[in-house]
Formats: sequence, structure tokens, C-alpha cells
Amino acid sequence: MAKTNAGNFFEDFTIGQVIEHATPRTVTEGDRALYGALYPTRFALPSSAEFAASVGLRNAPVEELIAFHIGFGKTVPDISLNAVANLGYAECRFHEPVVAGDTLTTRSEVIGLKQNSNGKSGVVYVRSTASNQRGEVALEWARWVMVHKRDVGSAAPETVLPDLAKVVAVGDLVIPEGLDFTEYDFTAAGEPHRFDDYAVGEKIDHVDGVTLSESEHMMATRLWQNTAKVHFNEQARPDGKRLIYGGHIISMARALSFNGLANAQLVSAINGGAHTSPAFAGDTVYAWSEVLDKAETAAPGVGALRLRLVATRNRDESMTLRGEDGKYADGVLLDLDYWAFVPR
Amino acid sequence: MAKTNAGNFFEDFTIGQVIEHATPRTVTEGDRALYGALYPTRFALPSSAEFAASVGLRNAPVEELIAFHIGFGKTVPDISLNAVANLGYAECRFHEPVVAGDTLTTRSEVIGLKQNSNGKSGVVYVRSTASNQRGEVALEWARWVMVHKRDVGSAAPETVLPDLAKVVAVGDLVIPEGLDFTEYDFTAAGEPHRFDDYAVGEKIDHVDGVTLSESEHMMATRLWQNTAKVHFNEQARPDGKRLIYGGHIISMARALSFNGLANAQLVSAINGGAHTSPAFAGDTVYAWSEVLDKAETAAPGVGALRLRLVATRNRDESMTLRGEDGKYADGVLLDLDYWAFVPR
Amino acid sequence: MAKTNAGNFFEDFTIGQVIEHATPRTVTEGDRALYGALYPTRFALPSSAEFAASVGLRNAPVEELIAFHIGFGKTVPDISLNAVANLGYAECRFHEPVVAGDTLTTRSEVIGLKQNSNGKSGVVYVRSTASNQRGEVALEWARWVMVHKRDVGSAAPETVLPDLAKVVAVGDLVIPEGLDFTEYDFTAAGEPHRFDDYAVGEKIDHVDGVTLSESEHMMATRLWQNTAKVHFNEQARPDGKRLIYGGHIISMARALSFNGLANAQLVSAINGGAHTSPAFAGDTVYAWSEVLDKAETAAPGVGALRLRLVATRNRDESMTLRGEDGKYADGVLLDLDYWAFVPR
Repeated sequence: MAKTNAGNFFEDFTIGQVIEHATPRTVTEGDRALYGALYPTRFALPSSAEFAASVGLRNAPVEELIAFHIGFGKTVPDISLNAVANLGYAECRFHEPVVAGDTLTTRSEVIGLKQNSNGKSGVVYVRSTASNQRGEVALEWARWVMVHKRDVGSAAPETVLPDLAKVVAVGDLVIPEGLDFTEYDFTAAGEPHRFDDYAVGEKIDHVDGVTLSESEHMMATRLWQNTAKVHFNEQARPDGKRLIYGGHIISMARALSFNGLANAQLVSAINGGAHTSPAFAGDTVYAWSEVLDKAETAAPGVGALRLRLVATRNRDESMTLRGEDGKYADGVLLDLDYWAFVPR
Repeated sequence: MAKTNAGNFFEDFTIGQVIEHATPRTVTEGDRALYGALYPTRFALPSSAEFAASVGLRNAPVEELIAFHIGFGKTVPDISLNAVANLGYAECRFHEPVVAGDTLTTRSEVIGLKQNSNGKSGVVYVRSTASNQRGEVALEWARWVMVHKRDVGSAAPETVLPDLAKVVAVGDLVIPEGLDFTEYDFTAAGEPHRFDDYAVGEKIDHVDGVTLSESEHMMATRLWQNTAKVHFNEQARPDGKRLIYGGHIISMARALSFNGLANAQLVSAINGGAHTSPAFAGDTVYAWSEVLDKAETAAPGVGALRLRLVATRNRDESMTLRGEDGKYADGVLLDLDYWAFVPR
Repeated sequence: MAKTNAGNFFEDFTIGQVIEHATPRTVTEGDRALYGALYPTRFALPSSAEFAASVGLRNAPVEELIAFHIGFGKTVPDISLNAVANLGYAECRFHEPVVAGDTLTTRSEVIGLKQNSNGKSGVVYVRSTASNQRGEVALEWARWVMVHKRDVGSAAPETVLPDLAKVVAVGDLVIPEGLDFTEYDFTAAGEPHRFDDYAVGEKIDHVDGVTLSESEHMMATRLWQNTAKVHFNEQARPDGKRLIYGGHIISMARALSFNGLANAQLVSAINGGAHTSPAFAGDTVYAWSEVLDKAETAAPGVGALRLRLVATRNRDESMTLRGEDGKYADGVLLDLDYWAFVPR
């Protein structure tokens, strides 16, 4: 009996299948500190227990993306160990803010399957939910990956394509219990810009850049117990390079976006995202944002901004997403579409 | 009066001498997070407070090797600052699981001395005990190091060789209070393999590899307050390379062994270990294990596996420990013999 | 309306102006662990909750320099983002020891202004105070930086030069409440040297060296939320090198000084400091100290040593601060003048 995990192949997935992922993970203050050491984050809410309390949140939530990375990482050994590519995600919503002491567990349900015409691989769609020790949902998301078949000759399953929203509707955003921005302290938060100061279509160049290093991306990826081999082992790829986990770029870009979006305090939903180019140690990453939409919410003083967050290799002051050919411009690493809460 | 510590030389040690090592060290949740950032560990017990509670342990113990590294590190300034070589260890037993908030202190007793025939150095044997703030033993071990003499002309001490067990007897393994694997959650732990699934003589290739980096091994070694110069200072060795602390390789291999030994939840004893070749940044480390023995224990649902854990530079799918000449095969970095607890 | 912070220029500062700096920051046990991973610190007081309690301190204070770096980092976006150079600091006094759970906020007052004769820049003097969530002062300090003018043609302000003490008087050192060294445990602390063993003029070569790495200095600097671009972005300087944050060198040298100054347990004041040469990854840093003064304090068993802490690139066993020309000797990176508390 082979003892090691070879991961699932395309034919191992069936519609409706539920997978309970391994390794429950208790979040600690150590995670918060490491996140702050790895990313230049300065958002006041996860930085300060006092600030969090001042906007109605208890127990000092950690950065939302910590929950995202941990939840996502748990699915890797079962879903994407044999992935050809991570194709996308959608309908990611953050529910209960995660605090130190919470233990996260992730389960996934297979919601779509489509074999590729070449017969060698197929696309698997899963909806995943990370919950805490009280069974409360911390976040949920859908994603789809292209996975190798074990046996090219095996029969194709019936094609099922899930109906995934292109954008999470504002009414579906989850307002953390107690959130209230009416007494929001703009001085402590670092910028004066509020909901009304942002216009749809506006672009913000976040100015700052960070040169990536091997140790940092590996430490981040391990911290989330993400086991994809290509991130840690320079012998795992023909080019001898360690591919940087896409989530590392998301967190880096989100942290850089503080400069101009300091009041986009809470990531509430991720509508979709594309990792458009691989990143490696030595690359210098910059970010820019575009306001895609804005909406009021039911919470006191709380508005929502729908933002495009773009990470680039080298700075692009022109903030060009796509070339005239419609393809992503050279140097674009990440195109992320998300909702954040801002004070009105 | 010289203020800096020159370390002890061979003639500074006497049989029965007790050394109280400096720098008591409080373990924190930060240590747990850093351990998870530095090693790809996914063992459910130290990862999840809920899982630990489900097997009867209170207060969410940290990884056992954290206690080992901290305890061991304290002895370096007194025992091995002038070591020619770390020759071996034996009879390492883990007693009380260490939890965040515990403060560890280490004391050692000299239990053996043997001057080398060249008169320039000698072997010192010590038995060390790391205890918590309540005076409870967290772990104990014996080790022996070859240490320089200060003065080649000084007289040799009477040779005393301690009688050290080659293997810790199963009956001498310490069962943590409350440990009970009868309700063990194999899904959460990540693998279905239990005591009966492992056969003596069985070898497991843990498949995954990690490329080592300078920052990571230095951060780990500092975290344990291990001060051996060769790990931090490229001017300390003629080859200009920083030698990686052997404990870094132990922890890396142990974490890699999750893939195939996910249910080897607790390191209970280390019977012996040899660091057979130096490791440096840039090396890619893999691991394989061999089941050396197995035994039942008195704790409900708990078996013990005696395992050989081998770390290699580059992957060796043949899992060859020694060549035909009886010497360790090329690329073997570590040969560790330990007991772990597994569910029956 | 530009959303990103362009920082303040010389003409933005006025005498008496008060700046409340952004991003309150809660200190955690994660910070303590990361500090220990980044610097080879072994001072017993911040390492052990038990030791801290044994000298009368509650709640296990973190290393004093953690508070210094966090407090200082907060001022960077407002004070020194457009700095030509950090010229110096003075009158830095540590008040209430910082413990995990404390949230630090920094405010600064402009206390001096002097336009340079070239009309392109000027020197700004600020006095800054970092306070905890109860409004208690954690530390305060003065510093002065040379800042670019936005508009060379703008009028020069009236020159005001603050009167800053060259050395904090012993009577002005703040004794942490309860501090009592009468039952000080020298064995746990690691060295036998007490107040009377140190003589004014004595120099101590701390022997050990550490080779610097990119990941480590970036992680440290981010952890303190220090945003100065030159530390993170190899495109931000013409030479393509990342300049290491001066505070990283201070912490490294302070940690290295344990070997010979293990009982200099608490940094109480920083009288002044000069970063005399830039440091880069690959440099190997050593440290030596000179006893500049010593004095008794009102606290039981507590003396104060005024120390010069010098960090050097490569080891200088001659411990030469300046050449015959009066300039800092080659390889001197840091010349720091501080007070520490030692047992009498």
C-alpha cells in the first residue's frame, strides 16, 4: 500500500463529491506578525486591536487574506496537486472575521467537470468553505483548475458547468457583526479619503515597489501549509526556478495598495482573479488599482468599493491592463477583482 | 577580566560536574508560527488546538522539535563552543508536552570523558535536561562532542565511558498525560494509515524536496538561541560558506515525512542520530523513512513506531543508506533513529 | 485629488506643529519570536517571562528596541519620506516597558527648522512620543533629518535650533516600576559581570559576526512598518542595491553585544547615534563596546552603564573608532551612545 499522497486526478472527481481537507489550523498572533514581516501592510484595522474595537470588531481580526491563504492551502493536496493550471476563482466571500485562536477547517464540493478535448486532462470546479471551530463560515469561494487524467483512456464524465457569478452582488457581501465606521479615525488609518472621494473609473498608482526574495515567498507559502512542489523545489521545474505562489503576489499587491487605499480596510469579497504571468525571486513588484464600482451598504458609515488590483513586474505609470491586441500587457502579474469596505 | 565567553575546553570538564545553562526561554505562539514558516509541517496535532484536545492533550502543544532545539541550543555556549565535532546523541526522551507560555531551562551533567590519543582534544559526554517553570521535565537527552583542549600539555582525566542505550525501550517512552487515540480523526490528520498498516522493514519515499536558503536556516538557528558561529558567519569557515545547523535538517526531514507518515504525530524519543554530511544553502533536501520496529503502548489506541528518518541532498528513490563499502551513501545528510506515536 | 502620500517637504513643517502618525500597532508574542529569529539576542529578561518576573517586571516585556523600531517607523511617512539623510537622534528615553497586547501610537512635534544655505533642502527637528493604549509614554526621542524642499524658490522659515542634551542625565533615566536587581540570577543571565566589574574606558570586543541577508533585513523593516523605499526596492537606488535600515544594524549589534554585556539587560536611553556607513546584504557585521560612564540609580541593585556600541563591517580587534584624521575608521557602520541597566 503506497503511503504517500499522489493527489487526485481528473477521473477521481465526481459531481457532488464532498472532500474534507486535512490539517485543521489554529491561527495565532504569530501569523499576524509573520504577515507583517512578509508584506508591507499598514491597514490600521488588523494592525491595531484598539482600532478594530473602535469600528465595532471584537478580538482583533487578522488580515482577511490570512484566512484566504490558509483556507485555500488546505485544498491543494486534494484538488490541485496534479493541476496543469489554476484557472480562476469566483464568489469568494468573507464571513466571520478570523481572530487568533480560531481553528480553520476546509471542505470542498465538486460543482463542475469538463474533460478537455485532448482527452489528457479536464477542468474541475469546486466550491470550498473554511469554517472555524464553532462551525461558523469564515470564508467560501469557488475555483476551477485543470487537472491531469491518470489514464488517458478513461471515459469522460458528463460535462457540468456551474453557474458562477461574475461579480458578488453588493447585497451578498457579508457585513461583520458590529461593523460601524461612523466614528472612523482617519488620522490613525493614515489617509483622509472616504467613499465619496473615489470615482468609478479612477486609477491609483500605488507608487512603491518590493523586490521579491526566495526565503520570503517560501516562508509565506509554507505558513499557509500550501504544498505545491513548484514553490519550494528548484528541481521541480525544468528552468530550475522556484515559482512564486500566486497568493504571495496578491498579498504583496494588497499591502502596496495601502498607499492610496488606506481606508479600504476589509476585503469583503473576491469576484475573480487571474495570475497572468509567473513571478520569480528578483522581480520587483508594483501595484495599481482601478475603481470598478461603488455601493452603499446597510452597515453604519460603511460603503463598498469594487476594485481591480493589478500587480506588475516593474512599475507601469501608464497603468495599462491590456495591449491593443486585448492581451494582458507585458509585466502584468495579477488582475484581481474584489470588494472592500470603506468609511463613508 | 575578559568579559566574553570563550567556552569550555576539554580540561574544564569533570565527571559529575553540573552546568546550569543560561537564558531561560519562554515558548510562544510566535515560535509555532515561525516553525510553520520555516518547515513544511502539517502534522494535525501541533497545527490545531482542536485536534490536540481531541486526542486528550491540553493547551495545544507545540511541535516536539521546538523543545528539542531550544533545549539543545542552551547547551552550546557551555558544551560545544569549542567542539571539533558533534559526535552523537542518545536516550532523548520527550516528557511533558511544551505549550506556549512554558519557560524552558536546561542543565547538563558530565557523564563521560575520554581524551583522544593525539592529546589535542577529547570526547565529553553530557546528559542534559530541559525543564519548564514548574520544574517538570520537558525532555532529556545525552550527547557527546569532541572538544579541543586549551593546553595540549595538560594531564588526561581518567577515562569514563557512560553506558548509553542504543535504543530507548518502549516501556521507557513517556506517554503524555491524557493521550488517547481511540477517537483519532484520520481525515483531519490527512492519511488513513494506522499502526497495523506499517511493517517493520518498510521504506517510504517522502517524495517532496525543499531547496535551502541562507535566511531560513539562520532564522531557525537564531530562534533556538543556538550560537555556534559557523551557522551565521561566512568568515568563520575557510570555505566562506555558512554551515547549516544539523537541527534544521532534522526539522526539514521530519516535516517532509508528513507525506506518508502523517499519523506519526508525536516524536517520543530520539534513539540516535548522525549528521553524515554538511548541508549548505542551495542544496535541495528530500527525505525517506524506514520502519525499524513497532510496539504497542499502554495508552488507549496508541502504538509506537521506531523509524529511521534519512535526509538526502537530491532525491534518492532507491533509498540507499549505505554503499557496499558500508559507508553512508553519497548525498545522505542525516540518519536519525526515533520513536513516534501513531494511532492503532 | 491625488490619493497617494507624497510625504512632507521642508516647507510643510512649522515650529510647534503636531503630527499624529498613522497606524496604531499592537505588539504581540509574534514580534518577540521574529525579533529572536532575526537577531541573535539572548538577554534573559525579554527571553523569559520567569526571569522578568524575578526582577520585578510584570507581563514579560519585549526587547526595548522593538518599541523603538515601531515608534520610529510610524514617523517615516510624515517626517522622512523625502529625507536626504537621517542626521541624528538624541534624548531617547524608554519609559513604560512594552508588553504583548500593548498598542503603540506615535505623535511628533516640530521643534526646530533650519534651511540649508543652498536653498534646496533644510533640517527638521522633531520630538516624538510613542504611547500605549492607556496613554502612558512607552518611549520618547528627538531626531533631525535633512528634507528636500518642494519648491526651491519658497521662502526660508526663521531658523530655530532646539537645545538637545548630548547625554541623558542619569537622574532622567526612567526606572521601570518594580525593577529590582537584588535577587538577580547571574547564572540564568549567562555572565557573572556586574556593575563593579566594568570600568570607564574599558572596551569589549564582542567577537561574533553575522553575515547579513536581504530577506532578513526586509522582514525586520517591514515588521516595524517602516516604509522607506530604499530598503525594499532595488530599483529605488542608482546602484541597484537595497540599503539596510539603520535600525537593523542597531539591533544586530545590540544582540551581538550579549557576549560580554549579557547583564546590560535593559536599554534605558539612547543619547545619540550615527549611521556612519551604509550596510548591504553580504556584509558581515561585528560589534564592540566601550564603557563611557557609569552611575548608580535609585532602584534596588540597579546600576547604569553608559555604553558606546560600535558595529563594524568585518571584525576590528583593535576597536578603532576614528582614524588619525578624526574621521570614522573604515568599516565602522554605527556609533551608538546609550544607557543600559545592570545589576550591582
